[in-house]
Amino acid sequence: MGFTDTDKLAINTIRVLAADATFNANSGHPGAPMGMAPAAHVLFNKFMKFNPKNTKWVNRDRFVLSNGHACMLQYALLHLYGYDLSIDDLKAFRHIDSKTPGHPEAHDTPGIEVTTGPLGQGICNAVGLAMAQAHAAAEFNKPGFDLIDNYTYCFLGDGCLMEGVSSEACSLAGHLQLGNLIAIWDDNHISIDGDTNQAFTEDVVKRYESYGWQVLEVHDGDHDLDSIYNAIKKAQEVKNKPTLIKLRTIIGFGSKNQGTHGVHGSPLKADDIKQLKEKFGFNPEQSFVVPQEVYDICHKHSAEGAAAEQEWNKLFASYAEKYKAEHDDLVRRLSGNLPEGWEKNLPVYTPKDAAVASRKLSEIVLQNVHSAIPELFGGSADLTGSNLTRWKDAVDFQPPATGLGDYSGRYVRYGVREHAMGAIMNGLAAYGTVIPYGGTFLNFVSYAAGAVRLSALSQVRVIWVATHDSIGLGEDGPTHQPIETLVHFRALPNCMVWRPADGNETSAAYYIALTSKHTPSIIALSRQNLPQLESSTIEKAAKGGYVLHEVEGADITLVSTGSEVCICIDAVKELAEKHNIKARVVSLPCFEVFDAQSKDYRLSVLPDGIPSLSVEVMSTMGWERYTHEQFGLNRFGASGVYKDVYKKFEFTPEGISKRAVATVDFWKNVPNIRSPVNRAFQQLI
Amino acid sequence: MGFTDTDKLAINTIRVLAADATFNANSGHPGAPMGMAPAAHVLFNKFMKFNPKNTKWVNRDRFVLSNGHACMLQYALLHLYGYDLSIDDLKAFRHIDSKTPGHPEAHDTPGIEVTTGPLGQGICNAVGLAMAQAHAAAEFNKPGFDLIDNYTYCFLGDGCLMEGVSSEACSLAGHLQLGNLIAIWDDNHISIDGDTNQAFTEDVVKRYESYGWQVLEVHDGDHDLDSIYNAIKKAQEVKNKPTLIKLRTIIGFGSKNQGTHGVHGSPLKADDIKQLKEKFGFNPEQSFVVPQEVYDICHKHSAEGAAAEQEWNKLFASYAEKYKAEHDDLVRRLSGNLPEGWEKNLPVYTPKDAAVASRKLSEIVLQNVHSAIPELFGGSADLTGSNLTRWKDAVDFQPPATGLGDYSGRYVRYGVREHAMGAIMNGLAAYGTVIPYGGTFLNFVSYAAGAVRLSALSQVRVIWVATHDSIGLGEDGPTHQPIETLVHFRALPNCMVWRPADGNETSAAYYIALTSKHTPSIIALSRQNLPQLESSTIEKAAKGGYVLHEVEGADITLVSTGSEVCICIDAVKELAEKHNIKARVVSLPCFEVFDAQSKDYRLSVLPDGIPSLSVEVMSTMGWERYTHEQFGLNRFGASGVYKDVYKKFEFTPEGISKRAVATVDFWKNVPNIRSPVNRAFQQLI
Repeated sequence: MGFTDTDKLAINTIRVLAADATFNANSGHPGAPMGMAPAAHVLFNKFMKFNPKNTKWVNRDRFVLSNGHACMLQYALLHLYGYDLSIDDLKAFRHIDSKTPGHPEAHDTPGIEVTTGPLGQGICNAVGLAMAQAHAAAEFNKPGFDLIDNYTYCFLGDGCLMEGVSSEACSLAGHLQLGNLIAIWDDNHISIDGDTNQAFTEDVVKRYESYGWQVLEVHDGDHDLDSIYNAIKKAQEVKNKPTLIKLRTIIGFGSKNQGTHGVHGSPLKADDIKQLKEKFGFNPEQSFVVPQEVYDICHKHSAEGAAAEQEWNKLFASYAEKYKAEHDDLVRRLSGNLPEGWEKNLPVYTPKDAAVASRKLSEIVLQNVHSAIPELFGGSADLTGSNLTRWKDAVDFQPPATGLGDYSGRYVRYGVREHAMGAIMNGLAAYGTVIPYGGTFLNFVSYAAGAVRLSALSQVRVIWVATHDSIGLGEDGPTHQPIETLVHFRALPNCMVWRPADGNETSAAYYIALTSKHTPSIIALSRQNLPQLESSTIEKAAKGGYVLHEVEGADITLVSTGSEVCICIDAVKELAEKHNIKARVVSLPCFEVFDAQSKDYRLSVLPDGIPSLSVEVMSTMGWERYTHEQFGLNRFGASGVYKDVYKKFEFTPEGISKRAVATVDFWKNVPNIRSPVNRAFQQLI
Repeated sequence: MGFTDTDKLAINTIRVLAADATFNANSGHPGAPMGMAPAAHVLFNKFMKFNPKNTKWVNRDRFVLSNGHACMLQYALLHLYGYDLSIDDLKAFRHIDSKTPGHPEAHDTPGIEVTTGPLGQGICNAVGLAMAQAHAAAEFNKPGFDLIDNYTYCFLGDGCLMEGVSSEACSLAGHLQLGNLIAIWDDNHISIDGDTNQAFTEDVVKRYESYGWQVLEVHDGDHDLDSIYNAIKKAQEVKNKPTLIKLRTIIGFGSKNQGTHGVHGSPLKADDIKQLKEKFGFNPEQSFVVPQEVYDICHKHSAEGAAAEQEWNKLFASYAEKYKAEHDDLVRRLSGNLPEGWEKNLPVYTPKDAAVASRKLSEIVLQNVHSAIPELFGGSADLTGSNLTRWKDAVDFQPPATGLGDYSGRYVRYGVREHAMGAIMNGLAAYGTVIPYGGTFLNFVSYAAGAVRLSALSQVRVIWVATHDSIGLGEDGPTHQPIETLVHFRALPNCMVWRPADGNETSAAYYIALTSKHTPSIIALSRQNLPQLESSTIEKAAKGGYVLHEVEGADITLVSTGSEVCICIDAVKELAEKHNIKARVVSLPCFEVFDAQSKDYRLSVLPDGIPSLSVEVMSTMGWERYTHEQFGLNRFGASGVYKDVYKKFEFTPEGISKRAVATVDFWKNVPNIRSPVNRAFQQLI
């Protein structure tokens, strides 16, 4: 490959832009962009296939910046290649309400595929993107129609490699033989604490080989553009292994402090920038300057990408003639809409139906809807038989060489890797052709908290099938019994936490989760059997909260979720018979969805005038928002048969009645009891 | 080593006990105990040094069962070797309120070192135990006095190896050259989803070698006791590397279903147990039987351990004569008490002192107290310069061969490994001679949620220095700005979450954290400067909440934490001048500690009669427990200069005043306003 002076100029332009923007922001990370600029230029200008005017073209190559703090690199590239990111946007780097925040956010900035910054997440997203590509290719490609053949490229730093989540995902990526995944490690020997030899002396090459990756090395990533080019080329050629390219660079290349952690997380000083510009042939008096020839070679490449998309569109049009159903399916999937009528497959229950664990109810939903929703793409973190996440006759997503499945398979064996599963699902969802769900015990969704947070922030449709949702799991004991888990995720913005009480509510949870294009969901499901409730319906439950049992002249409202709702129903009888107290019962399976209802509706469910008591076998924190008094478990659980555990903590009709009596008594002299739905002012959301 | 028939009988006794106990519980995991019984017997009977009558002897060998679901193995061993665990306790396996819960809990069962079960945690705890041993040896051993020379042994399964947290900790353990750490991997090829070839095909041997471990292999872990013995022996001999022994076993050895996942998580059937007992020469009509000769060889070994402790006690007595200060220091540390008068080193501030970021205030505390508390043993997950966790002239805890420090060093470079840091700290704390603290951004404590939960459950003194605690971190933006983090950990039982508002409150947070022997703490600290408040004191703040600003005839109570307290103080003036509203201000730096105060005290802080408004720049969830109205941030933050971000979300005196006015207005017609401190009944805690 003949690299020219213009290539070098383009590289130095990126470096200078990164120095200018961080200096202008008085904040940010110049070092990694300056060090990675050569690899970024080679990758973007010589390999990457994209059309900046259509950032949603399905067969574009994906680029993930796992070391998201280096985002000025990505913003500079997006600008140079003609994405909707102006030089003014670069000047607004790290300024409030800009399109160039301190770490890349997918929903804010055109051309950003996934939200990165928390270390280790991006490389896992890349694994997800590569899995989705392999799956889409297996589903949609036909002889003569290589519709889906894009690569996923990922830059990552030492920090990403140290994070365990990346170990999990990269081990799985090796197992899955994802030849379309090419990761470039910025081996600059520097992390925030200084030289990586202080904490990170493992043999990364050997480790990635142990995962089944191809590992290539580029010894001079600052100058040797040909070696960078050849490494990427070689990575593309190996089809049954992901590739890690160990790229030795000098962090902050060109700075007076290059090669030190001084250039990692702080802008360069003014005099340093001056010498940098002089060294690279830029006018030291000017900032944010892009030489025209740099724009030219970048825009030329973008034009080639646009032309490639045109070619692809022609291919897709002739595909439409031959494979109309597949064509229409792909178009529909990319719109984010589900197939018409899919919801008719949701199971509906009557009180005569048998009591069933809600994890089993979840399995029935998946069994019933998986044919109607071909983009449903699930798995479990090695708890398939407990989470009940696999429909009958599902094909596993596996490399064909294993003999255990193939890439058209829709069920992923994630292994005991909850955090990677969460981060991979974010990548899967970002690809656009699948809706991922993943199973584990509710308590272990916490292992994946970092990834769940990014699902919510980046607004992707990801579904957690979180079984064994309380002390009701019984014998496994306190190490496995969630207490703080629901409140944790209820407090996470843009995350729906469902805890259905029966079959209709489980169907409702899936209905809302599957139709919410921009919000992840966690569906908390019981291990133990739950009866089908009188008067529950999918429609009512889909409001997040509703009156399950009404009574005239009620003295108290019992408000509950999941497995405690049926105990509240039993408590109603106990209260009426033994205490002459009339109780109504509200089921509140999802706070977030209930909060989105009109105030009138919410007040009809949680009315003024009578006190209310929440009942849920975990932390009471957060329930004060809906009820006057709370019965919960603000301590760790216990190991034992589930009924014994419930009894120990008094989650019985008697235990609830006792507290309901106390509640009625405590509030009896308060005139005009106000429902907690009434607030003095609106929250910022 | 000549192994006898009694050795084999002991092994089969463990197997049969595991089968009996899981059958009796109708729940549990017989497979791993049956497969690991040979290694367990060889390790416990031929190597482990312990005295069951004094489970706190500091120089005992530590044993960690990282695959905690196999706990019947550990319970059987504890029983056989004469720990305070009777055959009736084994019969009560997984029964409520027993000493033998479904996963091992350190605070409940004598002889259990750390609480395990959530996969991957135990091996990290073991790394922490081994680090603490190396550190204690470096501090206390003297020529002729090898006081501290114990080993840490750990059993782990495939699940532990798949979890990223173990990758993080084992990479660090290799870097730290922990020769005293010996891990035995139950390589049984089975996880819950079936054969590990479905998801876990990496080359584990090569991976651990890449970490700098010695890896040994035992090809027949079911029969070849000599090879097991020799491998452990060889592991002991290598002094500058941890060792992983790859032990090939058959899960559920002896069962008709041995080698399948059918024996992993369910008891054996009655007929299977019958054939098992017959095969092993046990009476199939009897359960929970231990042959006397098995008790004999186990008790003999325990007696040798007791004798070894006697010898050690003699050594320690003569050590006392020669090294009185060190002797007394070790005795004191093991008591959990801090040195007398240490608290005099806590900094005290007056309003005249400069405004300082609370992360900096935290640094000053560490700087001031580290000499007085020699057991303080800290570090950071590669954010030392941001967390400000390292006192001047601290020595790094490093293998001497690196030239970067030595094992007497008290500062750990954890690398970008938050989850491992949390789990390692649990092991460090469990050893008994250090008090660990660790720094990261508050948002990334969530990466370690699994470990923090086990700190709380296992009741260890671990301190998180969690800086950059809100949108106040500014430019790094939403990926780094906590919203749900505080409520998550506030809802975790037995976990103190502190958010100090100034210097005195920071000292109070450390005071309580350091003196709470059985509770972990998270101290949330600001990046931005905070003024020293009028009337704050260590004593007042140590109550978790107190009146910072009182006014007669107040119309409203503003309740706040951390960086928003000073804005509330400014709002008081604004409210008085512009709205004729008298506001009092309460600082509530720690919910958990405040909740532990008397009701009278809490009512004096949050009185009846006037409405209250909480002000905190993150999720309002949980604040309804203390205040009538809440001003917070139930959405993600923004990237920008911190003052711009605060302004955007109206966390200004004006923004607070607006909501205070709305609050007063909303509550003005309510007679006898009740403080939320009043509750209808007591919670179960």
